[in-house]
Amino acid sequence: MTDIQNYMSRVGKQARLASRAMSSAQSSAKNAALEAIATALEANEPALLAANAKDMQAGRDSGLDAALLDRLELSPAGIAAMAEGLRQIIALPDPVGEISDMAYRPSGIQIGKMRVSLGVVGIIYESRPNVTADAAALCLKSGNAAILRGGKEAIHSNRAIAECIHAGLEKAGLPADAVQVIDTTDREAVGLMIAMPEYVDVIIPRGGKGLIERISAGARVPVIKHLDGICHVYIDDEADLEKATQIAFNAKTHRYGVCNAMETLLVAEGIAEQVLPELCAMYVEKGVEIRGCATTQKVVAGVVAATEQDWATEYLAPIISIRVVKDMAEAIEHIGQFSSGHTESIITENYTKSRRFLREVDSSSVMVNASTRFADGFEYGLGAEIGISTDKFHARGPVGLHGLTSQKYIVLGDGQIRQ
Amino acid sequence: MTDIQNYMSRVGKQARLASRAMSSAQSSAKNAALEAIATALEANEPALLAANAKDMQAGRDSGLDAALLDRLELSPAGIAAMAEGLRQIIALPDPVGEISDMAYRPSGIQIGKMRVSLGVVGIIYESRPNVTADAAALCLKSGNAAILRGGKEAIHSNRAIAECIHAGLEKAGLPADAVQVIDTTDREAVGLMIAMPEYVDVIIPRGGKGLIERISAGARVPVIKHLDGICHVYIDDEADLEKATQIAFNAKTHRYGVCNAMETLLVAEGIAEQVLPELCAMYVEKGVEIRGCATTQKVVAGVVAATEQDWATEYLAPIISIRVVKDMAEAIEHIGQFSSGHTESIITENYTKSRRFLREVDSSSVMVNASTRFADGFEYGLGAEIGISTDKFHARGPVGLHGLTSQKYIVLGDGQIRQ
Repeated sequence: MTDIQNYMSRVGKQARLASRAMSSAQSSAKNAALEAIATALEANEPALLAANAKDMQAGRDSGLDAALLDRLELSPAGIAAMAEGLRQIIALPDPVGEISDMAYRPSGIQIGKMRVSLGVVGIIYESRPNVTADAAALCLKSGNAAILRGGKEAIHSNRAIAECIHAGLEKAGLPADAVQVIDTTDREAVGLMIAMPEYVDVIIPRGGKGLIERISAGARVPVIKHLDGICHVYIDDEADLEKATQIAFNAKTHRYGVCNAMETLLVAEGIAEQVLPELCAMYVEKGVEIRGCATTQKVVAGVVAATEQDWATEYLAPIISIRVVKDMAEAIEHIGQFSSGHTESIITENYTKSRRFLREVDSSSVMVNASTRFADGFEYGLGAEIGISTDKFHARGPVGLHGLTSQKYIVLGDGQIRQ
Repeated sequence: MTDIQNYMSRVGKQARLASRAMSSAQSSAKNAALEAIATALEANEPALLAANAKDMQAGRDSGLDAALLDRLELSPAGIAAMAEGLRQIIALPDPVGEISDMAYRPSGIQIGKMRVSLGVVGIIYESRPNVTADAAALCLKSGNAAILRGGKEAIHSNRAIAECIHAGLEKAGLPADAVQVIDTTDREAVGLMIAMPEYVDVIIPRGGKGLIERISAGARVPVIKHLDGICHVYIDDEADLEKATQIAFNAKTHRYGVCNAMETLLVAEGIAEQVLPELCAMYVEKGVEIRGCATTQKVVAGVVAATEQDWATEYLAPIISIRVVKDMAEAIEHIGQFSSGHTESIITENYTKSRRFLREVDSSSVMVNASTRFADGFEYGLGAEIGISTDKFHARGPVGLHGLTSQKYIVLGDGQIRQ
């Protein structure tokens, strides 16, 4: 074995061992560790800033662009926010050991489910160092061991954060190996990490589509993946005009670079002339470029023609594509063809159509009369999220603590045997 | 593309298309199809028996052993049982569209979950032709399309059953492609089927450990797998002697060739002399071979020495291994090392120990004072099962209709936008 193979295999073994202790750790110990980590982050602010300064300098020297440097930077406020995030996770109920659905069977046994941790969670992410603390905290609270692999440009920051995490775990009497940060920038580490089913139970990639596709293609373990967010709002001909305008405007313009922003607006032809002129004027005033179908171009002057490629594009930018459709059936068909399965919303006052849209649209979040921007773990009340799954297997939509757990059956008897 | 590649790709495309219709099919249509399939199976008994006779003849000619021929054989009673199984699935509630956990958030949106089908389920199994009807029915009821690949020795029987299934689907106005039986014995079909993530959402292998390991190693889609069942009963020193004896006897001897049979009995040293002599006499009388640790050999005369290999063996036969342990901690350690994660049971009257065993043992079913033989979908009230998952991801333990579904978030609003 090469050095890097030896290293990853040692990390995997240590994680597996630590996961056993974590799976039955008391809530109080896990919360004490989270508090000790938060305190250590605050107490070590100067060291964290110094480590981050090294990364920033190296980033500038190697010509990283401004957006990447922005994501890489840790400020005193950013460190305080990391600590605050940890304390929010302390406040969440411990998912491990939750018992549900206990019921008696005719045989006299009583059967139900108990929530359990998954084991070892591998998280692969890009430049933001705060993900190191967030991801560690979610894995810790859900009784898992974590192997974290951040971007190479953040290696000094991540090392410094890892020291705080280890100090916190040890202070609470939990194994320091419960959270391991991969301490090499060798790219081979990622390939090895996603192919050790004996040590890693699930991989969560957080980052761009390219990263996620590479990891999904090479993984030998389950991947909770979040690909792109091509979200739609459909304005039905029975929509309330005020709601329609407000939601379509909010879903596009509240933030541009986020996965739950609307990229394509679908409008029923019966209402297009009433809703589009005012709405498009609002977009134009906000500086949003509009690309429309032929009908949209007829209804609103100055709209660029949308190409087939537009319907399949996640802009993440102040650009919107608009298509006028015959009715809801055509809207659902368009969504089925072009959506990435993230989030879609219908604006309608019609009861039957709202029920049908909810049932037939196959996305991780389906909404009626609400902005797609609500699709996130905090807004849904999960308290925190480790990502938004556009898969259907295991976890779908915003993934919080429950998504990092599984369930086992428990059976309580009084001596029952099979007849 | 070769012929077989073309064929599998066509099957995949048809399944994907049919899965769209199935995901929003009404409960009444799905139940009507199940009833029509049951009726068709009964009406076509002579044709089914004739097709099966061909398989049996070919099996005898190629020298299949008696056990395999037994699994392959379809009798009039077997056909009636298939039809009865379909009618039991009609009686189960439709899982698709189930809404749960709807709650209001401070923003005013109301959020919850709706259960949805997975899409296309691929099932790979061995010689039993009745699996064709069972698996088709479970996939159909859960709103999935199914691709079924049975053993090559059952090809004529499976074709005849597939005809009944297609007739039933068409009678109920559902697409016949919702259930496709792979109509070739070419082994390459399996390799292709498990590597088409664009058409197949999950693979469920049903069969021996070899089959399941091969499929897991080659799959490019999630696999719900059931490996072996090395199940344990631990008799604690605070066990009720009568319950302990009855359960340990039942768990081993009720049926030998099943995955939820006990293979290893662990006994606390404080109670070994009270429980083992009588219990071992019962095993011996029943014809069960006993392989024991050194202490077991001291307590009971005539016991063969167990080797390290015994603790890791799923006998599926009238053989039991017995180990005397110091206490529950040592029992849990033994289980952690040798269990296949299927089912374990503790026999104790002690409250604290029962709680600790339930929490710390990491198997798909963990029991107190009940026979491991209860670990099955019917006994648990799932109504039917497509297998027992020893994985932790997505589905664990007996997998019924819910295991063949996922959930999406649904959001009901009144015009809410993100602030």
